[in-house]
Amino acid sequence: MEAQALQFFSACVIAAGFGVGIAALGCGIGQGFGVRGAVEGIARNPESSGKVTVTLLIGLAMIESLCIYALVVALILIYAHPQAAAIAGLFAH
Amino acid sequence: MEAQALQFFSACVIAAGFGVGIAALGCGIGQGFGVRGAVEGIARNPESSGKVTVTLLIGLAMIESLCIYALVVALILIYAHPQAAAIAGLFAH
Amino acid sequence: MEAQALQFFSACVIAAGFGVGIAALGCGIGQGFGVRGAVEGIARNPESSGKVTVTLLIGLAMIESLCIYALVVALILIYAHPQAAAIAGLFAH
Amino acid sequence: MEAQALQFFSACVIAAGFGVGIAALGCGIGQGFGVRGAVEGIARNPESSGKVTVTLLIGLAMIESLCIYALVVALILIYAHPQAAAIAGLFAH
Amino acid sequence: MEAQALQFFSACVIAAGFGVGIAALGCGIGQGFGVRGAVEGIARNPESSGKVTVTLLIGLAMIESLCIYALVVALILIYAHPQAAAIAGLFAH
Amino acid sequence: MEAQALQFFSACVIAAGFGVGIAALGCGIGQGFGVRGAVEGIARNPESSGKVTVTLLIGLAMIESLCIYALVVALILIYAHPQAAAIAGLFAH
Amino acid sequence: MEAQALQFFSACVIAAGFGVGIAALGCGIGQGFGVRGAVEGIARNPESSGKVTVTLLIGLAMIESLCIYALVVALILIYAHPQAAAIAGLFAH
Amino acid sequence: MEAQALQFFSACVIAAGFGVGIAALGCGIGQGFGVRGAVEGIARNPESSGKVTVTLLIGLAMIESLCIYALVVALILIYAHPQAAAIAGLFAH
Amino acid sequence: MEAQALQFFSACVIAAGFGVGIAALGCGIGQGFGVRGAVEGIARNPESSGKVTVTLLIGLAMIESLCIYALVVALILIYAHPQAAAIAGLFAH
Amino acid sequence: MEAQALQFFSACVIAAGFGVGIAALGCGIGQGFGVRGAVEGIARNPESSGKVTVTLLIGLAMIESLCIYALVVALILIYAHPQAAAIAGLFAH
Amino acid sequence: MEAQALQFFSACVIAAGFGVGIAALGCGIGQGFGVRGAVEGIARNPESSGKVTVTLLIGLAMIESLCIYALVVALILIYAHPQAAAIAGLFAH
Amino acid sequence: MEAQALQFFSACVIAAGFGVGIAALGCGIGQGFGVRGAVEGIARNPESSGKVTVTLLIGLAMIESLCIYALVVALILIYAHPQAAAIAGLFAH
Amino acid sequence: MEAQALQFFSACVIAAGFGVGIAALGCGIGQGFGVRGAVEGIARNPESSGKVTVTLLIGLAMIESLCIYALVVALILIYAHPQAAAIAGLFAH
Amino acid sequence: MEAQALQFFSACVIAAGFGVGIAALGCGIGQGFGVRGAVEGIARNPESSGKVTVTLLIGLAMIESLCIYALVVALILIYAHPQAAAIAGLFAH
Repeated sequence: MEAQALQFFSACVIAAGFGVGIAALGCGIGQGFGVRGAVEGIARNPESSGKVTVTLLIGLAMIESLCIYALVVALILIYAHPQAAAIAGLFAH
Repeated sequence: MEAQALQFFSACVIAAGFGVGIAALGCGIGQGFGVRGAVEGIARNPESSGKVTVTLLIGLAMIESLCIYALVVALILIYAHPQAAAIAGLFAH
Repeated sequence: MEAQALQFFSACVIAAGFGVGIAALGCGIGQGFGVRGAVEGIARNPESSGKVTVTLLIGLAMIESLCIYALVVALILIYAHPQAAAIAGLFAH
Repeated sequence: MEAQALQFFSACVIAAGFGVGIAALGCGIGQGFGVRGAVEGIARNPESSGKVTVTLLIGLAMIESLCIYALVVALILIYAHPQAAAIAGLFAH
Repeated sequence: MEAQALQFFSACVIAAGFGVGIAALGCGIGQGFGVRGAVEGIARNPESSGKVTVTLLIGLAMIESLCIYALVVALILIYAHPQAAAIAGLFAH
Repeated sequence: MEAQALQFFSACVIAAGFGVGIAALGCGIGQGFGVRGAVEGIARNPESSGKVTVTLLIGLAMIESLCIYALVVALILIYAHPQAAAIAGLFAH
Repeated sequence: MEAQALQFFSACVIAAGFGVGIAALGCGIGQGFGVRGAVEGIARNPESSGKVTVTLLIGLAMIESLCIYALVVALILIYAHPQAAAIAGLFAH
Repeated sequence: MEAQALQFFSACVIAAGFGVGIAALGCGIGQGFGVRGAVEGIARNPESSGKVTVTLLIGLAMIESLCIYALVVALILIYAHPQAAAIAGLFAH
Repeated sequence: MEAQALQFFSACVIAAGFGVGIAALGCGIGQGFGVRGAVEGIARNPESSGKVTVTLLIGLAMIESLCIYALVVALILIYAHPQAAAIAGLFAH
Repeated sequence: MEAQALQFFSACVIAAGFGVGIAALGCGIGQGFGVRGAVEGIARNPESSGKVTVTLLIGLAMIESLCIYALVVALILIYAHPQAAAIAGLFAH
Repeated sequence: MEAQALQFFSACVIAAGFGVGIAALGCGIGQGFGVRGAVEGIARNPESSGKVTVTLLIGLAMIESLCIYALVVALILIYAHPQAAAIAGLFAH
Repeated sequence: MEAQALQFFSACVIAAGFGVGIAALGCGIGQGFGVRGAVEGIARNPESSGKVTVTLLIGLAMIESLCIYALVVALILIYAHPQAAAIAGLFAH
Repeated sequence: MEAQALQFFSACVIAAGFGVGIAALGCGIGQGFGVRGAVEGIARNPESSGKVTVTLLIGLAMIESLCIYALVVALILIYAHPQAAAIAGLFAH
Repeated sequence: MEAQALQFFSACVIAAGFGVGIAALGCGIGQGFGVRGAVEGIARNPESSGKVTVTLLIGLAMIESLCIYALVVALILIYAHPQAAAIAGLFAH
């Protein structure tokens, strides 16, 4: 029984580590597209810099939020899974 | 029996972590396409900035919703699976 | 027997989590293509903004529906699988 | 015997969840290509908006149908597999 | 023996679900290429709309047929596999 | 022995379902390239519509034939494998 | 021994089904490139239609032959493997 | 011992079927590039048709040869593996 | 029990190492897009260098943060998993 | 012991079949790039046909050699592995 | 117990080696994008060389830092995992 | 012991066959890029043919060398692994 | 115990060999982008050759360093893992 | 014990063969980019041939070095792993 409890925590850390990694993979590429467009645009038309930066920041924040969802799920899996306390209790005494 | 119950929770956390991660991967790339188009467009024609930003926000919100579906499913799997209480009860006494 | 019943619920949550995640991956990229086209188009020709936004919304709604199909299947697997009640009954007493 | 019966239902939910997810992945990207072309075209030539939207809708409906095939197969696997009743009967008493 | 019979039906549903899903993935992307070309073309030259739509419909129908082949195979696997009746008879009494 | 016979039929349905699915994936994308080229071409030069459509149909038929090869193999695996009758006879009495 | 003989036939059908499917995947995409080039070319210059079609047919036939190689190997594996008769004889009495 | 002999033949058919399939996948895409270039070129400059076709045929023949290497290896594995006779002799009496 | 405890730490290091690696993979490609756009832009219009660099730095910092999320999760898994002390205590005496 | 000897030959045929297949995949795509460039070039400038064809043939021969390396290794694995005779001797009596 | 301790170190080296490798894969491609943009830009406008190089160096340093994160995690896994000393003590006497 | 010795030779042939195949895959695509550039260049400017061909040959030779490294390693694994003689001696009497 | 010690060294060599290989894969493609940009740029504007080469060398050195990180980790795994001496001692007497 | 020693050498040859193969895959594609750029550049501007070739050779040498790192690691794994002699001694008597 306790061995299974440890396997549950193993699954949690696998899901947390890979989940955040995969999310960062996609969001990093996505933000890269956005940044590339912005810097190319500003270089062509420096006067648009203010508006472009505002739009870029909105976009990056939206993409950032996607990765933060995965981060939140990962942190829940590590710190706040509803059964974690009960399962941890199986080998705590 | 209890060992199997813990495997069920392991499956839940694997599905939650990877599901959100994979969804964020795709939606991050998708939002990146949108942001790139918007900032390039605004740089070329700063006067269109208002209309472009509105359309961009609608689009990003739609993409965001896709990732939120996966987040909702993940949170259901962690907190609100209908059999979770019954299964957790198998090792709770 | 009860152990197998729990494996069935494990399969359900794996299918639900990954299914929605994979669907969101593709639909997110797809909506990103649409949004990019729309914002670039509006930036080039701001007067077309109304017609473009209407068409974009129709398209995004169609893509959204694809992901919702996967979401519906996921929710059925979690809450409404026709054998779920019978199987849950195997370990409920 | 009953354990195997539950494995059959596990296979059904895996096939249903992943099948719809994979189909939505491809159809979402495909519809995204279509929407992008349409909104770019309308932005360039707003007067073509009616004809473009009609053609787009025909195309999106065709793509939608592909995903619906997968959805139908998934629902058959969940609700209407011809052996499902017989197999469910193995553990129903 | 009966356990193996159930594994056969499991293989059928796996093949049916994934087969249709994979086919829809490819055909969805393919139809998306076609639709994109059509709507861009009509937007550039609205007068060609009739001829373009006819050709598009022929093409989409051909692609649709590919996915229908996979659907037919899936339905055969679910409803009409020639050994299905004999195998189902192994656990029907 | 009979258990192995059922595994043979399982292999048949896996090969049939996935084989047609993978073939439809590639042929669908391929036909999509063809259709896109045709509709873009007709839109640019509507007078070439007849010749383009003839060539397109020849091409689509060739691609279709590739997928039909896979379909034929799948149907042979389901209905006409030369050892199928002998193997089915192992559990038919 | 007989169980192994059935595994041999299982390997044959797996190789036949997937082999043709993978070949059709690549050849379908390849023919799609060819068809796209041809229809775009004819649309631009309809008078070249005869020569283009001849060259296209030669090319498609060459690509078709690649898939037919895989089909031939698949049919050999199903119908004409040199050890098949001997192996089938292991369970034929 | 005889069971292992059958596993050897299983490995042969797996290698033969997949090897030809993978080779046809790559060579089909490669020939597709070549055919596309040729038909586009001929459409632009029909008078170059003779020279283009000769060069195309040389190229397609070279690509064809690659796939034929894989076909030859597959046929050797099926019909002419130097140990095949000895291994087949293990279960022939 | 102690063997399982060591498997938990193995899962932690696998998740930490691969998670950071996958995140760095995506963020590295993403930052590369941004840097490419910036240096091409500055080369075309050196006077925009200040504004472009500021926007680039904002973007790179956002992408960097995604990878840092994965790094933080990895460090938590190595140094600060809430059950780590309890599990380490299983083999510490 | 003899069973292991057969597994060695199984590994040989797997390596030979897949190795040649993977090599042909890459070399086929590579030769396709070359042929496409050549036929497009000749179509644009038919007078360069001689020089282009010579360079193409040199390039195709170089790529062909890569696939022949894999073919040679495959044939060595089938016919001339230095331990093959000794290993075959294990079950030859 | 000691066997498990060695498996823990095996997991550490696998995570360290692959983690750095995967990170270098992505960061190498990313830096390649940046360098390509820079050298093309300098070639077009050699006078921008100073500003471009400064921006490039900032970008490359940011990407380098991502790979260094993975390197740091790898070195921690090899040299400084908090439980390593305790686990190594399990087989040190 | 002897069974393990045969597994070592199996690993050698797997590594040799796949290693050369994967190397040829990449180098074939790489040489294809080079050849395409060369033939397109010569077609555009036939007078540059001599210099282009020299540079192409240098490049192809460099790429060829990469594949030859893999071939050398494969031949070492087949013919000259330092422990091969000792291991072969385990079953030679 | 000793068997596990050898598995540890097996994990080390797997991680070292694949880690360097994967890193070289990505860095090779990345350096290729850089070199392509540089030689195209110099060909267009030979006078920029000095500045371009300096920037290229800086970039290639940065990418080289990424691969060297993986090489260093590989060499540490082979020669300098802190537990290696202790583990090697397990079978040294 | 000796069986495990042979597994260690199996891991070495797998890592050596695949490591070099994967490295050659990436470096071959990378060098191909470089060569393509160079030959296209020289064809456009034959007078830049000297400078282009020098830069190309520097770049190819850098990429070559990446593959040589993998080759060196492979040769170390085959000939000079520090524990190899000790492990080989386990079955040498």
